[in-house]
Amino acid sequence: MAQKPSIPKGTRDFSPIEMARRNYIFSTIKSVFALYGFQQIETPAMENLNTLMGKYGEEGDKLLFKILNSGDWKGAIDAEMLANASIGQLTNKVSEKGLRYDLTVPFARYVVQHREEIQFPFRRYQIQPVWRADRPQKGRYREFYQCDVDVIGTDSLVSELELMQIVEEVYRRFGIRVVLHINNRKILAGIAEVIGEPDKMIYITVAIDKLDKIGVENVNKELQERGLTMKAIEALQPILNLTGSNEDKLAQLETILASSETGMKGVAEMKTIFGLAKQADLHLAVKLDLCLARGLNYYTGAIFEVKAQDVEMGSITGGGRYDNLTGIFGMPGVSGVGISFGADRIYDVLNELNLYPEEMLTGTQVLFAAFGEEELRYSLAWAKALREKGIRTEVYPEPAKMKKQMAYADAQQIPLVAIVGGDEMASQTVMLKNMLSGEQKAVHLDELINQFN
Amino acid sequence: MAQKPSIPKGTRDFSPIEMARRNYIFSTIKSVFALYGFQQIETPAMENLNTLMGKYGEEGDKLLFKILNSGDWKGAIDAEMLANASIGQLTNKVSEKGLRYDLTVPFARYVVQHREEIQFPFRRYQIQPVWRADRPQKGRYREFYQCDVDVIGTDSLVSELELMQIVEEVYRRFGIRVVLHINNRKILAGIAEVIGEPDKMIYITVAIDKLDKIGVENVNKELQERGLTMKAIEALQPILNLTGSNEDKLAQLETILASSETGMKGVAEMKTIFGLAKQADLHLAVKLDLCLARGLNYYTGAIFEVKAQDVEMGSITGGGRYDNLTGIFGMPGVSGVGISFGADRIYDVLNELNLYPEEMLTGTQVLFAAFGEEELRYSLAWAKALREKGIRTEVYPEPAKMKKQMAYADAQQIPLVAIVGGDEMASQTVMLKNMLSGEQKAVHLDELINQFN
Repeated sequence: MAQKPSIPKGTRDFSPIEMARRNYIFSTIKSVFALYGFQQIETPAMENLNTLMGKYGEEGDKLLFKILNSGDWKGAIDAEMLANASIGQLTNKVSEKGLRYDLTVPFARYVVQHREEIQFPFRRYQIQPVWRADRPQKGRYREFYQCDVDVIGTDSLVSELELMQIVEEVYRRFGIRVVLHINNRKILAGIAEVIGEPDKMIYITVAIDKLDKIGVENVNKELQERGLTMKAIEALQPILNLTGSNEDKLAQLETILASSETGMKGVAEMKTIFGLAKQADLHLAVKLDLCLARGLNYYTGAIFEVKAQDVEMGSITGGGRYDNLTGIFGMPGVSGVGISFGADRIYDVLNELNLYPEEMLTGTQVLFAAFGEEELRYSLAWAKALREKGIRTEVYPEPAKMKKQMAYADAQQIPLVAIVGGDEMASQTVMLKNMLSGEQKAVHLDELINQFN
Repeated sequence: MAQKPSIPKGTRDFSPIEMARRNYIFSTIKSVFALYGFQQIETPAMENLNTLMGKYGEEGDKLLFKILNSGDWKGAIDAEMLANASIGQLTNKVSEKGLRYDLTVPFARYVVQHREEIQFPFRRYQIQPVWRADRPQKGRYREFYQCDVDVIGTDSLVSELELMQIVEEVYRRFGIRVVLHINNRKILAGIAEVIGEPDKMIYITVAIDKLDKIGVENVNKELQERGLTMKAIEALQPILNLTGSNEDKLAQLETILASSETGMKGVAEMKTIFGLAKQADLHLAVKLDLCLARGLNYYTGAIFEVKAQDVEMGSITGGGRYDNLTGIFGMPGVSGVGISFGADRIYDVLNELNLYPEEMLTGTQVLFAAFGEEELRYSLAWAKALREKGIRTEVYPEPAKMKKQMAYADAQQIPLVAIVGGDEMASQTVMLKNMLSGEQKAVHLDELINQFN
């Protein structure tokens, strides 16, 4: 019996209309990246497991898709191992490669591996799928695209500005109103210092990062479990709830963090970034958000998250400054900053707000529909002439019933159908039907071409 | 100690310049596909193994990259299995998914799975990487892109013509002179009949397919091993060596194959295809090549291979007509025809013939190089104005030594550098340096923008 075909859970097929929409998203983002002088790279889907393992925490290691070694993998294990070794140890025996989990670690690996060829500051972007063995659920897939853009090899805050400009321009082109939430890891470190828990900065950021999801009470509970004193947790609350303009908040932080060198450095960085934004006439709505922490531990300076204003949705773009991403591969002291656009969420926002432009579609503009074999052959020369003018043209490949050919044009939303019968052949014309208005008229070749000028 | 980073053998990183070249190849091919009304789809990198296994022969099954099941995969095997089960049986226990091996089987799976949504004839293209655990060697990778274009749901030979037109147009745009070799599986079947070996058609095509690689003697040896009589092998030789124009060869075949209904049908198809090509004024060099067989067994009609004329290289595009691709997934009787462009080989041909156009590069057009922090801030407003005009602009993010900034521009092949010092700020200008000619002059903003009109 034939198999009923399906695809692995958490993965997707993309139909022509979905691809047109995705291509619109990717090409918009790419053209903005190019406008700012970023260059594209690609890395392999498979990386060596020693490149990937240990970079995403224990949980991340489990979520890596691992490739079974080719050939006789079973020769690498024996009954004793099977009985006694851990699943991790056994996996090491039978698998050397995994699918990439994000674009950041492969980028760090790329920079170190190709350091001699790279001109720093290196401005790269990368748009490729990543794979995670997460439990699939609404909006969470096991294969999805990331669109990462990074500047590496400079600690200039002009790079933070540029990424904010890119956010502004990308969402302006999409027509999505957004707010950029910004914070700074140095400010968070300063806060940890002044509340008397300088060693617990990581726990504090990890907990704060969940504020949106689990609420303030659960965050405080988590902080307590992590060993923060009640006094520290109490001291933290008003800081996370500072009000006023970004400038107001920074002014208050200058007082609160006065005793923390790191914290004051963070405040100074934010002042510089806001100053640059003013200088560059940035129109993006930017909100200093002290509750923004971002979970990944490699951030060391500014951190960003972008949210759509008119749709309930998590962050659609996020990133930050890291000072030692390439250190794990033996190249310390290289500072960089980057952000990642979430293509799947942007797709959902554009769908929900119905923001796809008409001209996004690159479908067929004219379909030739012939009554008979001879008419079909007559159409071929016309189709050739149209295509030479860049007009996207199809010839219905069979002289099928006209009703069937018209139904095809309808379903494919082809706007014009050139109907060819004996009369048209005799008069060197086609009967051109506008599928929207229903109007039709006999036209010569040059008239047909002129429709598209 | 830090790991020395590397990537799995047979895989590649693509640098910015390589990506620019690859993007040029893909966008050229895509725009021709769109001109003929083909629509893009994408399928997941991972397919269920029961979709992939058994579709590429025993050897192909071995070359599939298999994904280790997540979680406790070792629970699925025990010591007894480890001792007694075959590697294939064990693999089945620990792996349910594999990376796609080509785009054809996923396409067939897609068509069957989405048959209710699809409008037939379905004209799709698909450009995605595939993975094969082949032994890596020069020009053979474990991850590489395929560019497939197919019409499915019609047996009209107009589709064969269109694919030939697409071949013509793609290689015209690339500037590569090519010859399209064409043959027909029905003719090959007819030949098998008339030499008295009707049941051995598959062996004959598989052997003939290796003619280029192993030579006529080894082909004949293989045919002998497959059980063909010496008489049959002798009878085969003159047929494979027919000379003259395509029309001459077809005329000879009409005599040779007169007793074979299938063979005569193949001859008729070829006559129709050549007639359509004439009607559509096809300029592509087309050669009826009776030694062309193509290894894959699913072809049933016309088969194609394209070779570059000015470079020694295998086939750079190939494909053919199949009558039952979707049958394996329970949807019989759907005829289609398709071809696949080999992006990696096309890349090599374009490199070897040095055919990449200048305007392919989308790198930065203007770099701002500032002498100090204030000049850097001054540059930001200028950069914004340029980008608003669509001019790809970079601001060197630090007021580094001017020599360093110029070296960066040189290495990145940025054609214009806008140098900003105190004098320029005072006079509301920049010093614009042409990096090719070395000329420089002070310009106002509107003059700078006018450089690009």
